[in-house]
Amino acid sequence: MQARAGINRKMRIFISHLHGDHVFGLPGLLHSLSFMGRTRELEIIGPKGIADFILSVNRLVKLYSQFAIQIAEVTSAGRVVNEPEYEVRAATAKHGIPCFAYAFQEKPKPGRFDPDKARKLGIPEGPLWKKLQATSSVKVGKRRIASKLVVGPPRPGVKITYAVDTRPCASVVQLASGSDLLIHDSCFDASALEKAANYGHSTAVEAAKVAKRSRARRLVLFHISAMYEDATPLLRHAKKIFSHSILCGDMDSIKVDPEVG
Amino acid sequence: MQARAGINRKMRIFISHLHGDHVFGLPGLLHSLSFMGRTRELEIIGPKGIADFILSVNRLVKLYSQFAIQIAEVTSAGRVVNEPEYEVRAATAKHGIPCFAYAFQEKPKPGRFDPDKARKLGIPEGPLWKKLQATSSVKVGKRRIASKLVVGPPRPGVKITYAVDTRPCASVVQLASGSDLLIHDSCFDASALEKAANYGHSTAVEAAKVAKRSRARRLVLFHISAMYEDATPLLRHAKKIFSHSILCGDMDSIKVDPEVG
Repeated sequence: MQARAGINRKMRIFISHLHGDHVFGLPGLLHSLSFMGRTRELEIIGPKGIADFILSVNRLVKLYSQFAIQIAEVTSAGRVVNEPEYEVRAATAKHGIPCFAYAFQEKPKPGRFDPDKARKLGIPEGPLWKKLQATSSVKVGKRRIASKLVVGPPRPGVKITYAVDTRPCASVVQLASGSDLLIHDSCFDASALEKAANYGHSTAVEAAKVAKRSRARRLVLFHISAMYEDATPLLRHAKKIFSHSILCGDMDSIKVDPEVG
Repeated sequence: MQARAGINRKMRIFISHLHGDHVFGLPGLLHSLSFMGRTRELEIIGPKGIADFILSVNRLVKLYSQFAIQIAEVTSAGRVVNEPEYEVRAATAKHGIPCFAYAFQEKPKPGRFDPDKARKLGIPEGPLWKKLQATSSVKVGKRRIASKLVVGPPRPGVKITYAVDTRPCASVVQLASGSDLLIHDSCFDASALEKAANYGHSTAVEAAKVAKRSRARRLVLFHISAMYEDATPLLRHAKKIFSHSILCGDMDSIKVDPEVG
């Protein structure tokens, strides 16, 4: 509600793993969505056990949801969602219990249409303009005009990767490849590396190395331990390795534009 | 944490009933308490099913609590906690599924000790002063001095009753008898009486009548539906019947002193 994500929009919820801080908010969220008037089906995607969790809770405390809940358990890495405009892929994270990182990838969008050029070429405004964007050429009278004369190259889609909780690992580097935004576990600072290793988390420096290796464009240091009242030292250390590192707070909003970076 | 209730204090959690908005916060609370360093045993008291709920959640998503959790299921009305300084009683509320209202009642405290009077009567400061408060008389030299000469009458303890969610009912009126503070379901305004009856809630006017009948000293209108952006009309209606009605927001703090009211 605070993020104005919309109560009744098309919506999927991705659960990384079954630790309390990543799943205990779910029943309350479903309950609240129903109370606020959601009627549209909602899909929950998560590791094995997520269905049992939701069904067990519902057995004892009725969710009374006014909408259908689809639950899809991810059993292996790969594509978990495929829509006309985007897909979502899962990769195995490294966290002691089964845990997945997810990447949202928009499919390439048609190039930009240049109305001035089209007019100069004598193509009348109307259905032909749309056709030029969708196909490689159109016929105008007796001339065949190539789309590339008025339509720019296909534009890359946005790619956002979410990898929490996890140690740095090759599967996440691969998943995050070329992300516009990588949100990565940065639980500890470099001095607490042993702690990070023991608890299946990463240091901010390790997150920066993952961002660098995956050629991401920006890195959000995320899931920073509450023991750091001031997280700016973690940011400073990360920036030495990957300069486009940032910190985020709840409800912060980040504009992601793959054409600008 | 916000209410500064203390992480490691002696603590009991009372659950009224197994509806989502009254129980879905519990696993996260236990998880956070553990994370914040609680080591002291904690007792959870609630209706039948509360143990199964906590154990089922813990089976699928480990609570990892660093403290022992005792779960006591309330099966019938009556005293559910008995401590030297206070007791807690449960009464059956009226809400469609098993639901309990709870009353916290401090036991009477010894009367106030008047040190000036004690000195005038020649009682030396020290262990005899404590004994005067605890017993009916003390011997000072050859004299026996009655406690009532220097100690006021026993002071009543605080009584706070929490009755949410519920229709108005005799069992809650009885439980709330003489409360310094009654926190009562006031989900709807008088015009939505049918809705209140259908969903097992009370109107603010009904709550005020319960407060009046139980001779409570103050009433908190509570669990007001989110559909009322402004709850002051509910307060106005309640005050016509029970003038000591108040509204409260999250984190508000109410001083309760049975000697002042």
